Amino acid sequence: MTAYPKMTAQERKAEYARVCKTFEEEKAKGLCLNMARGKPGKAQLDLVSDMFQLMQRPEDYVSDGIDVRNYGELSGLPAAKRLFAEILGCKPEQVFVGGNASLQLMYDTISKAYTHGLLHSERPWCKEPVVKWLCPAPGYDRHFKVTESFGFELITIPMTDEGPDMDAVEAAIQDPAVKGMWNVPKYSNPDGIIYSDATIRRIASMKPAAPDFLLMWDNAYCIHEFEGEYVEFPDILSACAAYGNADMVFEFASTSKVTLPGAGISCFACSEANMAYMERLLTVQVISFDKVNQQRHVLYLKDKAHTLELMRKHAAIMAPKFRCVVDALDREIAPLEIASWRRPKGGYFVSLNAMPGTAKRTLALCKEAGVTMTGAGATFPYGKDPEDSNIRIAPSLPPVEELEQAIDVLCTCLKMAALEKLGV
Amino acid sequence: MTAYPKMTAQERKAEYARVCKTFEEEKAKGLCLNMARGKPGKAQLDLVSDMFQLMQRPEDYVSDGIDVRNYGELSGLPAAKRLFAEILGCKPEQVFVGGNASLQLMYDTISKAYTHGLLHSERPWCKEPVVKWLCPAPGYDRHFKVTESFGFELITIPMTDEGPDMDAVEAAIQDPAVKGMWNVPKYSNPDGIIYSDATIRRIASMKPAAPDFLLMWDNAYCIHEFEGEYVEFPDILSACAAYGNADMVFEFASTSKVTLPGAGISCFACSEANMAYMERLLTVQVISFDKVNQQRHVLYLKDKAHTLELMRKHAAIMAPKFRCVVDALDREIAPLEIASWRRPKGGYFVSLNAMPGTAKRTLALCKEAGVTMTGAGATFPYGKDPEDSNIRIAPSLPPVEELEQAIDVLCTCLKMAALEKLGV
Repeated sequence: MTAYPKMTAQERKAEYARVCKTFEEEKAKGLCLNMARGKPGKAQLDLVSDMFQLMQRPEDYVSDGIDVRNYGELSGLPAAKRLFAEILGCKPEQVFVGGNASLQLMYDTISKAYTHGLLHSERPWCKEPVVKWLCPAPGYDRHFKVTESFGFELITIPMTDEGPDMDAVEAAIQDPAVKGMWNVPKYSNPDGIIYSDATIRRIASMKPAAPDFLLMWDNAYCIHEFEGEYVEFPDILSACAAYGNADMVFEFASTSKVTLPGAGISCFACSEANMAYMERLLTVQVISFDKVNQQRHVLYLKDKAHTLELMRKHAAIMAPKFRCVVDALDREIAPLEIASWRRPKGGYFVSLNAMPGTAKRTLALCKEAGVTMTGAGATFPYGKDPEDSNIRIAPSLPPVEELEQAIDVLCTCLKMAALEKLGV
Repeated sequence: MTAYPKMTAQERKAEYARVCKTFEEEKAKGLCLNMARGKPGKAQLDLVSDMFQLMQRPEDYVSDGIDVRNYGELSGLPAAKRLFAEILGCKPEQVFVGGNASLQLMYDTISKAYTHGLLHSERPWCKEPVVKWLCPAPGYDRHFKVTESFGFELITIPMTDEGPDMDAVEAAIQDPAVKGMWNVPKYSNPDGIIYSDATIRRIASMKPAAPDFLLMWDNAYCIHEFEGEYVEFPDILSACAAYGNADMVFEFASTSKVTLPGAGISCFACSEANMAYMERLLTVQVISFDKVNQQRHVLYLKDKAHTLELMRKHAAIMAPKFRCVVDALDREIAPLEIASWRRPKGGYFVSLNAMPGTAKRTLALCKEAGVTMTGAGATFPYGKDPEDSNIRIAPSLPPVEELEQAIDVLCTCLKMAALEKLGV
């Protein structure tokens, strides 16, 4: 197959007619498939549902002498702190264990900065004339939405193969109105990039003009390899502390994609000084999170080694799905030279860059054929991809047989949109 | 026994010597008892722990066709909405089911008003020069703390036998800076007062100057009778709507004292217009709450009638504790004319008014003798009881045999403080 850009107008016309016919056939199937969100599939949910057989015996309700069923322990069960600390490589006393959603802990950290200020804030951010925020992009749409909802001015930072473009970051943080930055440092959403050691060093040693600069470190995929062995990753808390930036960072993690997305547990980790400050604010807001579920997770996951064993079982479900997506792209799209994509080894997404100016059209066509994808532009601040190119593929939810159909549709739509762009 | 105020100075001196001796004997026991918080006792936790035998079969994970284990359903499971709606007397579509803590939903509602504004706000409250807030007192210390933490100016509204002094409320809401009001309308914390129909009518028909006045209706003890039959209580949502105030009220409830305080489910209820507005804000913050626990509660509690049966079992545990407290006060304190108290039929507290100027001293003495009570002043805005009189007794946690010791200590301390005040 000739690459589309190298085709003559006539060849393109003929190809377009063929592709349109395929599209109509696919459309006629009346599909209803979803690759929009990083949602685990049913096989993954079934994999862990034996966790509800725990918490039967009276001794299961007691953890370090605490009756997990009653009020108390604002910052979580000590045993749950130890579990997250081992996984993240930080200290248990740096961990606050929350409810079922790390997104809520992230939102709350920023909300607290806005309403009350952080430890080193001169005033609450709602009293600042303007707050600016760094968004490595492509990135996670929900992150960007949180900071957008507080009226922050979002600044796009390009992603490189090693993480955010640190030259751009170091220039931006000279502005004291720049108050923070989003990060998904391991298997970034959607690119699947692992921040390099050099990038992490430059981040940890930043000297932002804002005294209360907030490094949001969403370690969402810290143990989420689906190909190859577990990859060790540096503890950002001690890295920041080594450069005198102990209070700059809040790290987040959850078991949403370890146990259950609707019913896991989450945590944030930060310096002891930040912890004391946040607990003083949080004690006004909540008596305690669900410690029964924390205890259920402690009993079920046990420790890091045992958790990594479970992650290998998730990997066995996830890997064929990712292979299905990437193989189809290699086979159908690579020869056409109309898109590029990464081959992640962990995380929940495949990030595809279509021919500039074709992402919106591609996804509109997908929708028409019954395949729901993450909205075009979603991976950029304000939902606006300046190139109209990036497409986030989330292969985790559909079973492989559905995924095969969905990716076929996507390939067809990529072709149609590219041909239209090139002229037919 | 002669009433203390009628004793001669010499009689008081002799009595004081006797009481001090008793105090020293009690202190020598090295007690460590807690009547500080409305925390259920172990017998109540054990009563409901069979709920963890649910969620074993695959069909338990599906509710109205929704897999409760995965992401989704921001506002909660429809079945959980139906359950709360039946208990509160409102409509399921008016209910948002959250996580394990209604306090967090209350905090968040006020935080949203502060950061983003409410449906009828002209601007977010953080942009207002001053926000004032009505606090019926004695009231719930955690409520007051929430509004204090946002820098609101707290205005004390006296409580009457029928609820808040509505003359004072109606006068205060003429000020457009007055943005809201706390309420625990059934078995108020700590007085155990049930708002009268007349009070509820006056509240529902208020015409506050602030267009975004927020009536916080914490129906924490909506089904929490421990003596006598269940008392029907009007639905505040339809009451407000009947007076054109549909969007004025947010109601809150939880199962913290129905199932488990650390691991229950909570809800807020509001008008459909408010719901649409709040969901638009909340979707940025959270994907969904713990629906597995919501489903566990639906399966366990079933409906209102079945839930009321469970509440009768709680009542059988609670009633003897309250009787123990009130009987001791009747026997030991009533003849002395140094304090008054209420005899609640539901809720979690006994509210005692000691001789003015003696609450702090009484509680300091209790502490010295190993009995922890809610701090003096806690039931008033800013933790300052102008009369230094109100003492909140929380009898739920200790078993009856410990409670008997604790209340004996309290009686001794009340006597000592009163005698010291009268002069010895």
